[in-house]
Amino acid sequence: MILFMNGQFIPEELAVISVADRGFLYGDGLFETIRVAGGQPFRLMEHLDRLQRGADFLKLRVPYNRSELAFAAAELIARNGMIDAILRIHLSRGVGRRGYSPRGAHSPTLVMSVSVLSEEPRPTCWKAIIASFRVAADDPIAQHKTSNKLAPILARMEAEAAGMDEALLLNTRGEITEAASGNLFWVWRETVLTPPLSSSALAGITRSAVLELCHKLGYPTAERPLLPDELKKADGAFLSLSSLGVIELSEVDGANLPSSPITRALRDAYERQLHQPG
Amino acid sequence: MILFMNGQFIPEELAVISVADRGFLYGDGLFETIRVAGGQPFRLMEHLDRLQRGADFLKLRVPYNRSELAFAAAELIARNGMIDAILRIHLSRGVGRRGYSPRGAHSPTLVMSVSVLSEEPRPTCWKAIIASFRVAADDPIAQHKTSNKLAPILARMEAEAAGMDEALLLNTRGEITEAASGNLFWVWRETVLTPPLSSSALAGITRSAVLELCHKLGYPTAERPLLPDELKKADGAFLSLSSLGVIELSEVDGANLPSSPITRALRDAYERQLHQPG
Repeated sequence: MILFMNGQFIPEELAVISVADRGFLYGDGLFETIRVAGGQPFRLMEHLDRLQRGADFLKLRVPYNRSELAFAAAELIARNGMIDAILRIHLSRGVGRRGYSPRGAHSPTLVMSVSVLSEEPRPTCWKAIIASFRVAADDPIAQHKTSNKLAPILARMEAEAAGMDEALLLNTRGEITEAASGNLFWVWRETVLTPPLSSSALAGITRSAVLELCHKLGYPTAERPLLPDELKKADGAFLSLSSLGVIELSEVDGANLPSSPITRALRDAYERQLHQPG
Repeated sequence: MILFMNGQFIPEELAVISVADRGFLYGDGLFETIRVAGGQPFRLMEHLDRLQRGADFLKLRVPYNRSELAFAAAELIARNGMIDAILRIHLSRGVGRRGYSPRGAHSPTLVMSVSVLSEEPRPTCWKAIIASFRVAADDPIAQHKTSNKLAPILARMEAEAAGMDEALLLNTRGEITEAASGNLFWVWRETVLTPPLSSSALAGITRSAVLELCHKLGYPTAERPLLPDELKKADGAFLSLSSLGVIELSEVDGANLPSSPITRALRDAYERQLHQPG
């Protein structure tokens, strides 16, 4: 596999960083996970926009402009002969002085890589638990896709230890924020709902894509804080992931959730859109 | 400079890790910062114990036992001719499969490095702001020294942008948890107080050392949640840092704090202890 790193295309085994990189030391960075379908990165510009917003938030310099990054992505996909794949961009603050202050860290590290989307049939339905710990409500950091990912990692570990597929996260107000690996939606009659960003949900690119599809297909949408008990009474629920698209939730914390025709309609529409050029 | 990495002593410039290391991707790891005084790492065993507790929490394997780590630390300090220095141990989960699940990541990365303690006179007094965002209260992750450090990094950036030295963090209940780089103490008459771990404070090794010194010197201690207004009425306040020891706070959010003789007594006792053998 070839990677793009700090301006060069290099073989995977040569793609190494200093152990003093602040990405490694403190998770001081950001990333994007982008679906590649038919050789094309899906909604790449939205991902690059979010990366830039995150970089502005962390006061971190993106060392290439959007068109340079888009060009590198296309070249990387082509050089690796990728058709259905996951493209990842990791940006860290690079090497600085000892300690938390980013003073003196002026050379960010940017790595772009691709990996084949698993050839096994992708899941369409997951069972979830609710993680035992809570994340901060109203957390400004949570809106960005940063490299501080221990909360979803620990949540996912709890799910796997319980023999489940995924975990939902609660914030300190007891509201469900999102799943470890994507945003949460639920269906109530004809309406498609999702927690607001103030619940500490990530501003997901696939979340936006799903909301747009709802408008296109005529389903009303709303942002609403969600308590676990309300989710268990929903007419259906699903997650939106950049990597896997729309995945239905069939169970949350032992409660069965009905399968909604709206979830299936959105999943089909999303998959069709993935394969439309442009 | 020589580093210890995955069992070998190697020059700094050869100490590199894969860009697929989960430490770099997600901050999926832990670290310890240990003061070296007179060539001896201070309270090394307590730091190694905390590293082990963090590793148990993250279900991460520490690839060496305590005596191997202590031997490597001593050898590293000697090879680099360090007298007054900072020893750092970083442990990450290493390379795994794509995604948050740690399945398949079986080779943790362990890096130990030393750096000279700055020869400039060390600060004895800092001015602090209170960071604008809040961290989760009762966060089990916060008790461990993980590599997810964006909250203290952003807090420190806010402080520096305001021309201040340090930032204190609030939790979602509005309690002060700790400073970006160490635990907080305050003095009320003869009593030395510090927030409980349930405020989401790190179980600092220097925090424990300071509490022990209080007992030795005859100052009563207590753990108590702390609101900013109470801090501003304190008879004194200070931070405890593994790297820098006891640092007095002279100002918080524009309010002057009195200098307490108890702070000075604890700082002197701590510095003396650093240089006692054993």
